[in-house]
Amino acid sequence: MKAVRLHKYEELPNVEEVAEPKITGPFDVIVRIGGAGLCRTDLHIIEGQWAEKSGVKLPYTLGHENAGWVHEVGSAVSNVVVGDTVIVHPLITCGLCRACRAGNDMHCSNSSFPGISVDGGMANFLKTSARAVVKLDPSLAPKDIAALADAGLTAYHAVKKASALLYPGTKAVIIGAGGLGHIGVQCLKALTPAEIIVVDRSPEALELTRGWGADHTALVDGYGSQRARVQEITNGQGAEVVIDFVGEGGAIEDGVAMLRRAGSYFVIGYGGKLDVPTIDIISTEINFIGNLVGTYNDLVDLMTLTAQGKVSLHTGMYPLDAALDAIHDLDSGRLRGRGILVP
Amino acid sequence: MKAVRLHKYEELPNVEEVAEPKITGPFDVIVRIGGAGLCRTDLHIIEGQWAEKSGVKLPYTLGHENAGWVHEVGSAVSNVVVGDTVIVHPLITCGLCRACRAGNDMHCSNSSFPGISVDGGMANFLKTSARAVVKLDPSLAPKDIAALADAGLTAYHAVKKASALLYPGTKAVIIGAGGLGHIGVQCLKALTPAEIIVVDRSPEALELTRGWGADHTALVDGYGSQRARVQEITNGQGAEVVIDFVGEGGAIEDGVAMLRRAGSYFVIGYGGKLDVPTIDIISTEINFIGNLVGTYNDLVDLMTLTAQGKVSLHTGMYPLDAALDAIHDLDSGRLRGRGILVP
Amino acid sequence: MKAVRLHKYEELPNVEEVAEPKITGPFDVIVRIGGAGLCRTDLHIIEGQWAEKSGVKLPYTLGHENAGWVHEVGSAVSNVVVGDTVIVHPLITCGLCRACRAGNDMHCSNSSFPGISVDGGMANFLKTSARAVVKLDPSLAPKDIAALADAGLTAYHAVKKASALLYPGTKAVIIGAGGLGHIGVQCLKALTPAEIIVVDRSPEALELTRGWGADHTALVDGYGSQRARVQEITNGQGAEVVIDFVGEGGAIEDGVAMLRRAGSYFVIGYGGKLDVPTIDIISTEINFIGNLVGTYNDLVDLMTLTAQGKVSLHTGMYPLDAALDAIHDLDSGRLRGRGILVP
Amino acid sequence: MKAVRLHKYEELPNVEEVAEPKITGPFDVIVRIGGAGLCRTDLHIIEGQWAEKSGVKLPYTLGHENAGWVHEVGSAVSNVVVGDTVIVHPLITCGLCRACRAGNDMHCSNSSFPGISVDGGMANFLKTSARAVVKLDPSLAPKDIAALADAGLTAYHAVKKASALLYPGTKAVIIGAGGLGHIGVQCLKALTPAEIIVVDRSPEALELTRGWGADHTALVDGYGSQRARVQEITNGQGAEVVIDFVGEGGAIEDGVAMLRRAGSYFVIGYGGKLDVPTIDIISTEINFIGNLVGTYNDLVDLMTLTAQGKVSLHTGMYPLDAALDAIHDLDSGRLRGRGILVP
Repeated sequence: MKAVRLHKYEELPNVEEVAEPKITGPFDVIVRIGGAGLCRTDLHIIEGQWAEKSGVKLPYTLGHENAGWVHEVGSAVSNVVVGDTVIVHPLITCGLCRACRAGNDMHCSNSSFPGISVDGGMANFLKTSARAVVKLDPSLAPKDIAALADAGLTAYHAVKKASALLYPGTKAVIIGAGGLGHIGVQCLKALTPAEIIVVDRSPEALELTRGWGADHTALVDGYGSQRARVQEITNGQGAEVVIDFVGEGGAIEDGVAMLRRAGSYFVIGYGGKLDVPTIDIISTEINFIGNLVGTYNDLVDLMTLTAQGKVSLHTGMYPLDAALDAIHDLDSGRLRGRGILVP
Repeated sequence: MKAVRLHKYEELPNVEEVAEPKITGPFDVIVRIGGAGLCRTDLHIIEGQWAEKSGVKLPYTLGHENAGWVHEVGSAVSNVVVGDTVIVHPLITCGLCRACRAGNDMHCSNSSFPGISVDGGMANFLKTSARAVVKLDPSLAPKDIAALADAGLTAYHAVKKASALLYPGTKAVIIGAGGLGHIGVQCLKALTPAEIIVVDRSPEALELTRGWGADHTALVDGYGSQRARVQEITNGQGAEVVIDFVGEGGAIEDGVAMLRRAGSYFVIGYGGKLDVPTIDIISTEINFIGNLVGTYNDLVDLMTLTAQGKVSLHTGMYPLDAALDAIHDLDSGRLRGRGILVP
Repeated sequence: MKAVRLHKYEELPNVEEVAEPKITGPFDVIVRIGGAGLCRTDLHIIEGQWAEKSGVKLPYTLGHENAGWVHEVGSAVSNVVVGDTVIVHPLITCGLCRACRAGNDMHCSNSSFPGISVDGGMANFLKTSARAVVKLDPSLAPKDIAALADAGLTAYHAVKKASALLYPGTKAVIIGAGGLGHIGVQCLKALTPAEIIVVDRSPEALELTRGWGADHTALVDGYGSQRARVQEITNGQGAEVVIDFVGEGGAIEDGVAMLRRAGSYFVIGYGGKLDVPTIDIISTEINFIGNLVGTYNDLVDLMTLTAQGKVSLHTGMYPLDAALDAIHDLDSGRLRGRGILVP
Repeated sequence: MKAVRLHKYEELPNVEEVAEPKITGPFDVIVRIGGAGLCRTDLHIIEGQWAEKSGVKLPYTLGHENAGWVHEVGSAVSNVVVGDTVIVHPLITCGLCRACRAGNDMHCSNSSFPGISVDGGMANFLKTSARAVVKLDPSLAPKDIAALADAGLTAYHAVKKASALLYPGTKAVIIGAGGLGHIGVQCLKALTPAEIIVVDRSPEALELTRGWGADHTALVDGYGSQRARVQEITNGQGAEVVIDFVGEGGAIEDGVAMLRRAGSYFVIGYGGKLDVPTIDIISTEINFIGNLVGTYNDLVDLMTLTAQGKVSLHTGMYPLDAALDAIHDLDSGRLRGRGILVP
């Protein structure tokens, strides 16, 4: 089969022939890929930013955001059958450790992460597990919803955690109106009564967020006027919640400056540093909350919102063979919405 | 009356005569001080670290950790009468803003903070409000419990928030076995089943924590072996909770290194900077939680623990006239436990 | 001034002349009534159902659901001035007890409840306190929003508590599409992504709930088919949440039968009995949650939802002089929406 | 092997020879029983109270409270090996349904319950699953801890839920100082700072609770003086939490009368009815919380408390052959602590 393989850090991957994955354990599931999302994390992987954390051995197949159809199942798989349409939770988890037993799949102590630590889904087939697949209505096209498997899941997970803090009259700032941000806005709208303020450097992206449910926008214009805009919208108090999908450049400093007393800052985007004097943390009692993909149930909930028409994706399709074009478009900022590779 | 007055930043305060405070509003309460605690924040105030944040006009009277007896009350005060023994919540709050109506006294939008933003309690008398005083059993000596008003309250508040994360088998690291830390250890013991690990640079202080309920200790020895010690105690996983009463020097870097996946870091001590790459925050989904004094009900709860014998203070008494000796002893590290000025 | 006075249980009240209330304490506020809601609780009061619980001395003025304009204020009132448009939280609270300090106004240990335990607002003027008034935009007409002070607040409070249990895909049953129920539907829609099922005996009332956000309806038809309908909608599992605004007749038995394993039943309407074998409670691990009006902040939140157009009231206006007509219409089931007396 | 088999409701079971269970699926685990607890639920099963709910086909083997050593494992079992000492969570769960994925094992939609719905552990061997076994320190004797598998788990689960409501100064009433109650007292002591009041009809049982951590006791003496005693201890306010391990006789009426405003009643014991006017539920805003065994992680936590010496069991041992003696002793009230059958 064809696969997008990374051979060396700081070099672009190749689209090349590799052997198909095989069932080896009773809970294995092989998925025929219908769509594999391209993510800024793929760029970070190529740059080598995850080399040490993932410990993956090169070469390997990228792609951690996958949907398709069940192709083959292990002997003990009972929740899906061959032919089912599925979206794939990004982690293969053990189901037996404390984190799994508490539903926190992303903290499984025996997990693997296809596309990060083992072969991923930018290929014709992906090997995953019964615990990772969410069965979908057969009318859904995998390529249309693949990006919910990671980008969508991550945005939903953070918004779900934030929703407990958001009652009528509160304000939530979303930094970044891109692939995750546009799902974040829709999830916030579906789950909370908060007023939503979106911050981005693209006037076009901001314009689109209105249609997804944003109440206010603040343009990053190079003069810092986004901070004044948020203070104006929040009557000089700042926002109860800031959800940062960027995490680098000036985004973090902006976000911290936009936070209200006792507010909470949700870190999702990464690349930069959180650098705050402890006196500022204690004198206003603010919080910084890490976020990492989401639980299996989070993914089920997100698929429910999608089925209800409350969340929809903005995507750009590329044939699997054109993976390098997609990577190039993402890197250069030309990709609107989420890029999807279709085998 | 006598009072400890700060005239200029970066200069020591004077003990001098000033006019007694007077009742001006229906909810005013004047407390005859029985004990006023000395806090590392007083040193930070003298250094000028709070100049901009507090906006206080010099000269003014220090002292934000007070207990004594009700001396005079305004016309509408119904919860205490003259002669009652009281401990004083550090904030004077409005009772009408959203934060007050939710019980979050420390976020009152119309508060003042005696000893920080207006005249405090290192004096014979302190002016506060009906909403700030907690009535105590008359058998209690104010000088013995004054340090619970701020140091104790802050430690209790952070431990209360952390307690929701601590179930049997979890580990909590307390950084700093000083004035706040020793109360933190006792509160953790009273509120949670967690195993407690105390980290400090003083072998003597660590030894004492055993009596307060610490299960393990880790000495900061200049070679970083405290980190290895915590990893050993936690089977290489790190602790679910780190409560940092130091917040400067290497404490923050240590604390972050001691945190387990999905763990939470409670910031209380200050002076240094939190400086963490966002990739580390998201790849382990860790949290940083700010903490600022506590609520009125937190102070009531802490006084209950004290009355039950579950929390006791380690103090060093000084006459009010010897305030500068106390400051000097605190600054030079010679003060064991919490320094109390007794008028 | 005129007032609706109850002289004897089981007899209708009179509209008669009484003295105007006077300011006697520093926090008193006198409100010129613009609208006073009529509630099924007023019928229960007249029937004597509250005689023992309220301990009120007859005769007294009914009316616990009030809005109007500030007419006079005590010496220490700082949050409103004469002329302000206000809605009145039903309880006068002390602000000093533990419940008040935690924001739980309805559990104040020194409260009074105008219209229940002291003179209420079916009159030209009402005496309340600074802690009870919520300042509104002057463009709002008190008669249009008065019913939010109690009916709305109670519905919002219960929905707020339920909202923590309601994630995408969950179902919430609302029993009773009347004065409280129609606000409950709108609040559920604003706060949660749950699918809403409304149960009522009136096809017309059910039809209206569609416009407020109901996803499904189930008619109580005397043959119990409402239970089958809810089981059908919930795939035979029952609903995660049942919110019962009726609390008598067959409503409770219906509601319990509609509950999913681990589901929660919110009791708001009253009159009947909860009568469930303990084996049924433990074998499915279900919960019964009491609800009593709401907090001051709940009322602020509800007014925010109203200002945002997310909650609107269905009312029928009556002059104060026609109070008995309104009572008669409510009792006989002819009153659609919430009855409002306008002085 | 030998097993305690129920052939007919309302008749005593037989100890007789049956075939040993066999491994049939990849996750099966066969445990050689070291101890099987006898529970009041076994009496209720014999009486036929569970006939309809469990749907079990007679004859079958009783015993839902089991510990022992791993005897044989299925091909995919990775968390235990033959010879490991284990305690057995009472439910065999699927690991794939929403409840399992959220950690709520007791609400698994594809579970079976050995000893209730399939063959249990009053036998030489029990068939369970990899998801049900908790590996223990080999020094532990299964017969000493078997009763924690259900009685202990149920008590811990309820106390864990209650602990979020219990801060310093609150009171918790435990009704019933028997098999579950004595574990409940110890768990409350380990997890919360609440003052504990135990209510029972046996002066000897009450005396013992002092050693487990009870602060107060109230004897049920036939004159209802237990209610007055609890009101006296709680200053006439009632208790924030009532945990009812009895659930029949006058226990429920007592418990409701002992509840404070906004208090919560945890239903664990069963047999009687909850019968409360809805006006009483809403006018004080009280809650009734169902409780059903507990999660896998709850059982792990409880075993941690046991290893730490914070929970210990009071048991009476019987050879498996003497099962009928044990049943007779439990039924007649002669069994102190928890009865354990040892094969």
